[in-house]
Amino acid sequence: MITGKNQIAGTFSAEGQQTFRTTDPAADKENPQEFFEATPAETDRAVNLASEAFRIYKKTSGTDRAAFLEAIAARLEASEEDIISCYIRESALPEGRARGEFARTTGQLRAFAVMLREGSWVEAIISNPEGKPDIRRVQCPVGPVAVFGASNFPLAFSTAGGDTASALAAGCPVVVKAHPMHAATGELVALAIADAARETGMPEGVFSHLNGKSLETGQRLVKHPKVKAVGFTGSISGGTALYRLACNREEPIPVYAEMGSVNPVVVLPSALEDKKDFWAAQYAGSITAGTGQFCTNPGLLLGIAGRELDSFTEALGKAIGQKAASCMLHPDIKAQYLKKRDEVLSQPGYSVVTAPEREADGNFALPHVIAADAEVFMKNGVYHQEVFGPFSVVVKCRDKAQLTEVLQHLEGQLTGTVLAEKEQELQEYAPAIDALKERVGRLILNGVPTGVEVCAAMMHGGPFPASTDSKFTSVGLTAVQRWVRPVAYQDWPDALLPDALRNSNPLNIFRNLNGVITKNAV
Amino acid sequence: MITGKNQIAGTFSAEGQQTFRTTDPAADKENPQEFFEATPAETDRAVNLASEAFRIYKKTSGTDRAAFLEAIAARLEASEEDIISCYIRESALPEGRARGEFARTTGQLRAFAVMLREGSWVEAIISNPEGKPDIRRVQCPVGPVAVFGASNFPLAFSTAGGDTASALAAGCPVVVKAHPMHAATGELVALAIADAARETGMPEGVFSHLNGKSLETGQRLVKHPKVKAVGFTGSISGGTALYRLACNREEPIPVYAEMGSVNPVVVLPSALEDKKDFWAAQYAGSITAGTGQFCTNPGLLLGIAGRELDSFTEALGKAIGQKAASCMLHPDIKAQYLKKRDEVLSQPGYSVVTAPEREADGNFALPHVIAADAEVFMKNGVYHQEVFGPFSVVVKCRDKAQLTEVLQHLEGQLTGTVLAEKEQELQEYAPAIDALKERVGRLILNGVPTGVEVCAAMMHGGPFPASTDSKFTSVGLTAVQRWVRPVAYQDWPDALLPDALRNSNPLNIFRNLNGVITKNAV
Repeated sequence: MITGKNQIAGTFSAEGQQTFRTTDPAADKENPQEFFEATPAETDRAVNLASEAFRIYKKTSGTDRAAFLEAIAARLEASEEDIISCYIRESALPEGRARGEFARTTGQLRAFAVMLREGSWVEAIISNPEGKPDIRRVQCPVGPVAVFGASNFPLAFSTAGGDTASALAAGCPVVVKAHPMHAATGELVALAIADAARETGMPEGVFSHLNGKSLETGQRLVKHPKVKAVGFTGSISGGTALYRLACNREEPIPVYAEMGSVNPVVVLPSALEDKKDFWAAQYAGSITAGTGQFCTNPGLLLGIAGRELDSFTEALGKAIGQKAASCMLHPDIKAQYLKKRDEVLSQPGYSVVTAPEREADGNFALPHVIAADAEVFMKNGVYHQEVFGPFSVVVKCRDKAQLTEVLQHLEGQLTGTVLAEKEQELQEYAPAIDALKERVGRLILNGVPTGVEVCAAMMHGGPFPASTDSKFTSVGLTAVQRWVRPVAYQDWPDALLPDALRNSNPLNIFRNLNGVITKNAV
Repeated sequence: MITGKNQIAGTFSAEGQQTFRTTDPAADKENPQEFFEATPAETDRAVNLASEAFRIYKKTSGTDRAAFLEAIAARLEASEEDIISCYIRESALPEGRARGEFARTTGQLRAFAVMLREGSWVEAIISNPEGKPDIRRVQCPVGPVAVFGASNFPLAFSTAGGDTASALAAGCPVVVKAHPMHAATGELVALAIADAARETGMPEGVFSHLNGKSLETGQRLVKHPKVKAVGFTGSISGGTALYRLACNREEPIPVYAEMGSVNPVVVLPSALEDKKDFWAAQYAGSITAGTGQFCTNPGLLLGIAGRELDSFTEALGKAIGQKAASCMLHPDIKAQYLKKRDEVLSQPGYSVVTAPEREADGNFALPHVIAADAEVFMKNGVYHQEVFGPFSVVVKCRDKAQLTEVLQHLEGQLTGTVLAEKEQELQEYAPAIDALKERVGRLILNGVPTGVEVCAAMMHGGPFPASTDSKFTSVGLTAVQRWVRPVAYQDWPDALLPDALRNSNPLNIFRNLNGVITKNAV
């Protein structure tokens, strides 16, 4: 059933000699299927066909693109059982998570379809006051987009994930560099996309799917002159390397990389009065969910030193200590987890909150939590690093001012969370919360950072190194903004304007008409 | 009256030993005043004070910031005569242009004030459907912004120009690196800003003004960890160097550089039927306006080879040949103009349309137009280069297909213009116009590219190398988007939300409320 081949514009291709296999991490063995690494010629072909397809695809209507996205969702559902079993075999993530991520993937494809049918996302602006030139501006797709699959979300951030869905919604053909850890899942998903493209009459070059375990395929994509933007979810080192590669091209292009984050959680005293055990249980769950392999995993908890924080930390340690070992995504990820964790554990000055009695077997891992004083934390950058896995640091601050100071010196983050039961307390800690806000893309009150809603208001991105461009989100409807650029038409005849800009407003969308947001005709 | 000093947070400072002078280009002599190059310590002080001011300034209301921008405009008007005479002495631009640019500068400050009072620019999005987390997102200022003054717009793209106005509107303090060619004009304008800040109670670090003739001051600004974004208008080499410097910082930051462009003009046959002489006169004016020193100067005219195009070219040459010599901005700019022009003139395969009988004296220059076949043009990248000054190339294409091919291979451009008297013809040439659209930020019909309206729909930016980020404009109201990033609040209490996101919509702004654009309360 799985061929191991690349899919270039709807056609299987396996021209190379290099192959690799995926792993069954739960069984700790390789899966039998071989995958063919894309050759440079295959990579170029995919991009060239994407570039040709762009001339047609960019002109498709929102309704047509919506039908395409919905067809992808339907095709995925027709293969759901195959995809789910493949996903579990390649990731060792539990079935509930697999089903949840599957539903999220089809759900976000359909959410973009709804956005396309509504149509106002193109941000039409019309300025034509008396006696001035008539200028009308609309967002237009940028061209072929390269998308990198993410190790930790084989569906929602990979082949048909948020980057692909938003780029296709924008009118951009997509070339996916599949994540090598779940290449078979990728192949099944890619087949669904190719079938949907055929079914809805899209140009075949609108989508290609390349296998690549080495770095070359991805680098070649990012450097290809016809690739106009890149979507990436993964490590800080990987994302930053691609970002710099793209900046140093003859024609620089944007790389929207969503990377690492320790997602600080500020535990204010009032949260520890009556709800200490509740939050300890919540955070034991959030820290260990998906074996800590979420980009929003809470790796840093900060509070005011004292008996209450100690008692919360103890309860957290106890709740986490009861968690069973769970499997990581891949032997390399487990190895990297242990390496990064042990780098932190080799630093001076912390105390152990909870630690596994012995290392879990195979690719399984057990959570680990330590605590340190703010002075120790601030002086030592190693404590700030993301440890991708079920590892967290509790930082004890002397007082409000020190808490603010620690937050001011944090690196950029996807999320920042505050636990507080009293609104009054949020005001008392306003400088700390303001400092937190400056470092994050999303500010959460009384929740856990894991769990990222797909909606118009979502911001999943943040100051570097959380992402390479803090202006854009990789989750939610405004993710589409990454793949468009505005074009202004000056004194253009109505009949030849894009529909979004025509006098009669045939798409019936919200437009900015001389400063007023309206659906009215001009 | 002019001190030659830096202005750091409202205080004069001249700690350095390095000085430079501006030129009176019309008289071809140095002006007497010495300007003190900012020292590294002065540069750092300006940024650190901007960073401190940010904590206060970002919390000012739109109304307060509007009052600040209006006060700047009023202070500028109070010094108008001094500024205008200084501007003319330092730039040799004619008084009409000086007054026009002055009015544009105060006009855009006031336009941003109107935008701030209206308030919807913050793009508030509220997603709170039943049973889901309440997520609300709003654009927030990024922090201190470094702005580089432009040689060719001493007012509208310099000290109090579009970058400064939009960044201050966004809530970002600004540190300007003044353009050394018009440092005195910059000083007068900076004084008006500092006075306005004082008058409206803004923190003094909200604005600083540094002199710099060497590259070091600008580079230090771009590399400073507390600078969060950069605005630049100037050459491709300068803008690209700063962009790459910023990308390679430990924490990369965006550089919004508006750089070079040859602004192709496609002359379709119908435009040459009855209006040939009209367009020849229009383009003679557009090519020579401001001695060709506009980023939207039409450096490339393309048409279908034949008698009509030849006859238009002849008329253009004749009209241009009647233009008097005019003064360039600076001896260095004249030298650079001659160098770039002569590099093109040393290429094989062109014919001369009009050329000065002898080189103009001093810093004056005369226009120069050549013509070449499309084959010659396409094969030789030197013909594609921007020659900053009154120089244009007419490219003769064999047919529609070749026109399309030439346009497809052009570098990114700020503008693309089409001259055509028949709508039908625009459809016949649809592939060419589509190719043009893919290479530009603004598409003009039957006009000249020089003249950039300040309005909400303006797009002054384009694919590289027209600008470093084709998503953003440096002119018009959406220029403010460069200096903000979205922050999402999840389950945050109403009383502590930014006003733009509160249930009652106290700012009375347009918001996206679960997919509907409305001013309604939640």
